[in-house]
Amino acid sequence: MVIIIRTDLKMGRGKIASQTAHAAVLLYKSSIENSNPHLKTWLNYGQPKVVLKIDSNCESDMKNIYNLALKNNLNSCIVRDAGKTQVGIGTLTAVGIGPNRADEIDKITNGFKLL
Amino acid sequence: MVIIIRTDLKMGRGKIASQTAHAAVLLYKSSIENSNPHLKTWLNYGQPKVVLKIDSNCESDMKNIYNLALKNNLNSCIVRDAGKTQVGIGTLTAVGIGPNRADEIDKITNGFKLL
Repeated sequence: MVIIIRTDLKMGRGKIASQTAHAAVLLYKSSIENSNPHLKTWLNYGQPKVVLKIDSNCESDMKNIYNLALKNNLNSCIVRDAGKTQVGIGTLTAVGIGPNRADEIDKITNGFKLL
Repeated sequence: MVIIIRTDLKMGRGKIASQTAHAAVLLYKSSIENSNPHLKTWLNYGQPKVVLKIDSNCESDMKNIYNLALKNNLNSCIVRDAGKTQVGIGTLTAVGIGPNRADEIDKITNGFKLL
């Protein structure tokens, strides 16, 4: 499971943590609902979560990652914040991918660095 | 849902984010398994996640929070890290509580500040 966080929003570490958690729960929830065949392996091997960063103020960059993941048959989600603190309502703060095979995710997230 | 993160470990923001996500998924998973009656409301109202901090290097402080939550019939989890980066294997990094009624969680987390 990989979660990509926008750094241009200058969110504090608590806010970043909550956005990452939003993405992780969304991915886990959709994996159950869609019978993601990679879920069981992920659960049994420490439920790894890798947090990456993207320095882009352009929502379409985030949407492109999301759409590319879907196109490659990977489980994916977009996080839009409720806008109660730090960012405006509906702001796209994160994109999540997985659980899927690491090499399949890497094809999409290869260019991004660890947060 | 409230997640309390240890600050004495000096984890980076990415590490904090992954520990928070671990806690959120564990809480969501156990809520499904235990038919937590508060889960549906939480899902329907934005799945709020509040991230707090505790400045303690004593694992028993974290365990006390966890045990107090269980004693009060709240859903709770402890996060132990796999120890691949930044902290030693098995380090207790976070405690999560919820989803439960906010006033019930507040009784336990009242003394902690936002991360």
